[in-house]
Amino acid sequence: MPGSTSSKIRTPIILVNFKTYIEGTGKNALKLAQACEKVSLETNVCVGVAPQFADIFSIANAVSIPVFSQHIDPFGAGSFTGHVLPESVKEAGAVGTLVNHSERRLKLADIDAIITRARENKLAQAVCSNNAAVSAAAAVLKPDMIAIEPPGLIGSGIPVSKAKPEVVSGTIDLVRQVNRDAVVLCGAGITRGEDVAAALKLGTEGVLVASGIVKAKDQYGAVMEFAEACRKHR
Amino acid sequence: MPGSTSSKIRTPIILVNFKTYIEGTGKNALKLAQACEKVSLETNVCVGVAPQFADIFSIANAVSIPVFSQHIDPFGAGSFTGHVLPESVKEAGAVGTLVNHSERRLKLADIDAIITRARENKLAQAVCSNNAAVSAAAAVLKPDMIAIEPPGLIGSGIPVSKAKPEVVSGTIDLVRQVNRDAVVLCGAGITRGEDVAAALKLGTEGVLVASGIVKAKDQYGAVMEFAEACRKHR
Amino acid sequence: MPGSTSSKIRTPIILVNFKTYIEGTGKNALKLAQACEKVSLETNVCVGVAPQFADIFSIANAVSIPVFSQHIDPFGAGSFTGHVLPESVKEAGAVGTLVNHSERRLKLADIDAIITRARENKLAQAVCSNNAAVSAAAAVLKPDMIAIEPPGLIGSGIPVSKAKPEVVSGTIDLVRQVNRDAVVLCGAGITRGEDVAAALKLGTEGVLVASGIVKAKDQYGAVMEFAEACRKHR
Amino acid sequence: MPGSTSSKIRTPIILVNFKTYIEGTGKNALKLAQACEKVSLETNVCVGVAPQFADIFSIANAVSIPVFSQHIDPFGAGSFTGHVLPESVKEAGAVGTLVNHSERRLKLADIDAIITRARENKLAQAVCSNNAAVSAAAAVLKPDMIAIEPPGLIGSGIPVSKAKPEVVSGTIDLVRQVNRDAVVLCGAGITRGEDVAAALKLGTEGVLVASGIVKAKDQYGAVMEFAEACRKHR
Repeated sequence: MPGSTSSKIRTPIILVNFKTYIEGTGKNALKLAQACEKVSLETNVCVGVAPQFADIFSIANAVSIPVFSQHIDPFGAGSFTGHVLPESVKEAGAVGTLVNHSERRLKLADIDAIITRARENKLAQAVCSNNAAVSAAAAVLKPDMIAIEPPGLIGSGIPVSKAKPEVVSGTIDLVRQVNRDAVVLCGAGITRGEDVAAALKLGTEGVLVASGIVKAKDQYGAVMEFAEACRKHR
Repeated sequence: MPGSTSSKIRTPIILVNFKTYIEGTGKNALKLAQACEKVSLETNVCVGVAPQFADIFSIANAVSIPVFSQHIDPFGAGSFTGHVLPESVKEAGAVGTLVNHSERRLKLADIDAIITRARENKLAQAVCSNNAAVSAAAAVLKPDMIAIEPPGLIGSGIPVSKAKPEVVSGTIDLVRQVNRDAVVLCGAGITRGEDVAAALKLGTEGVLVASGIVKAKDQYGAVMEFAEACRKHR
Repeated sequence: MPGSTSSKIRTPIILVNFKTYIEGTGKNALKLAQACEKVSLETNVCVGVAPQFADIFSIANAVSIPVFSQHIDPFGAGSFTGHVLPESVKEAGAVGTLVNHSERRLKLADIDAIITRARENKLAQAVCSNNAAVSAAAAVLKPDMIAIEPPGLIGSGIPVSKAKPEVVSGTIDLVRQVNRDAVVLCGAGITRGEDVAAALKLGTEGVLVASGIVKAKDQYGAVMEFAEACRKHR
Repeated sequence: MPGSTSSKIRTPIILVNFKTYIEGTGKNALKLAQACEKVSLETNVCVGVAPQFADIFSIANAVSIPVFSQHIDPFGAGSFTGHVLPESVKEAGAVGTLVNHSERRLKLADIDAIITRARENKLAQAVCSNNAAVSAAAAVLKPDMIAIEPPGLIGSGIPVSKAKPEVVSGTIDLVRQVNRDAVVLCGAGITRGEDVAAALKLGTEGVLVASGIVKAKDQYGAVMEFAEACRKHR
């Protein structure tokens, strides 16, 4: 992966955001991460997990797949009570971080500072964005990954890759004008293998997914369906 | 402790906020927490620690003293990427949380919601405040603890308990008019045992401290000096 | 009015929040303010208006009724681009300000600082709150007015004074335990004269209203209906 | 001016940010705007003013030079109490707006939405940025103007155009790679005519200035010195 800061991270990637779902908290989070690891080992497809801060340590010490933080703050070490120091999630075992998720939108200057701070800590950065123009703006800051997620489709079950293919391909086009290297992912409404296949066909190198896997009755089966779609694509 | 949600928490309490200091991150955080535990076991004085989110799990599994989160969010389980679910820090081992620290000031309605959410999760709440009036306003919301910290003195080395005793005693008076039970702590500039003694003499039931211990060359010695002051006070 | 900073403000008061409705912007705002003034002059009931910042000057120079800002910032004069200096809205003609509206929730320490800054500028403060406990917490800070608005009912057309009378009376009870003087208003879902009458009967001294008047086809008629209800109550 | 939404705005431009300085509030703001207009009429150099929201109406009705808002919000008309509707400042007489000033930093997605909303209202947009990379990221969103202001120099009296010429020229280079049309301004520490001359020589088309003019003992003289520097440059 170009610009990657971790040899663990390969594309195509299925990046599973645990959000603050109960099914992705504490012991549930650990079990889900282990299911993701199992699929990854069985299919040789890269599956990353983004659990809550307090679950990074136990998960990163239990599984071999890449663990992402859901957010880091732009600050350096110091007097920032209640904030997330990049060094802290790194030492807990994270190899990457989400940045600017639609549920944790950030100031432009902070996105820039966070990318720098993440790089200093060898944390891969997946910057989330809401449309093609914002994706390209973020791409100028040279993060490792851009994840386009149209807000209206998040959690909707309507897959961006099938309902709004032009948003995905338009994002890739616009990003490529300013950044040749960034890996482009897409997310929002992805619940089935065919949604993943459609995303890859549009030129993305993976998906950012949450409820489609975390809320699935059969989490292992859902990840496996996604991974099979990735394997077939190659 | 009145209203306490954890039998671990007793007063007088020395509550050590690790902030995002490097000396309080990762392995350093674990070592510091162990030093705090050692003092607590040797003196029988309650010493609590508030490490970063990602360090709660490893610390809470290693020590017997109370572990606090530095912040929790008011949300329930759901779609809140990058936020701190009370259930998450609870399951990682926290028994309490700071709320509204001066470096993480919160909206009034969120402080109210966080206290409710913390209570649901049996997490003790230490609400930080900047003056007597704000302390009393917070006290109306019935948190377990109020920690008054005049912003100008935080990290200054000038102890609030000696430089501004009237702020501390005025806070206690105003809080007592609206809340008989809340434990009142004070913080800011506390670096020596005599500062702790002065705080207890003014009627507080403990101190909230950060750099005075985390940045001390001899962390164990610093905590011990604080604990001795507590022991003498009884 | 106890603690009032403006002789213009009397109770019972109908306080009309123009929000950022087009019907309450620019020339529309001026016309609406004039309709409010007409009703006030005809009924001798106090009707206040809270237009957008950029409309305060033209409205305050055109009508004799009290003009409120929708928000002010806690800062003093200085380097705070894009913020709302109390001195600025005062000089433009405002005699009061909303504080902590549910659409502009504020940090607890900022509410405290804003009340102080408003008082320095002789601006009456109407602090909005979402429940009884938060109302009482705000009341400790001694604002001139507290306006309780349950979030779920705002803009709903279901009047708080009829649907949740216990919230209104519970708020008054709790506020009175910590503050004898603050005027208590209620809002949310108020669209008819009978809703206003119900609010006054519960012990409030007025209402905070927005869509019920601003979005009414006959704005003058709507204000008149509210004012008549106030007049009958006396 | 390419992409301009107002025939009033021409380059080179001196854009004066009144911040929340007392010298730029209320009647003082009006007097300062009139001094700026006088210089503009005498020198035929474009001088724009960015007063506080509540002062836009009286200033825009008194002077012929371009009036900017210091900020607008991304929202449409509706329930957004305490926010700044683009329609509102437009109707009050503004022809442009600052966006993302260092004292009012915005979320990336909001900057994108604000530029769109400003365009809908024919308000020129001057997006402020803190370094070359952030400037280029903002430029991707196609605002009319980019104003680079290194935070450390704001209000310092050390002119960016002389102390950090490489930041200014580096910004222009990076912006031009993604946007051919945006007017680039620079700001921070600009207090003398020679600072303005240096800024123009580096390839900017004007300056964003605050204390250098607003806090000057002789405001008219200060603006005149800036305007003369612009005139000589042509």
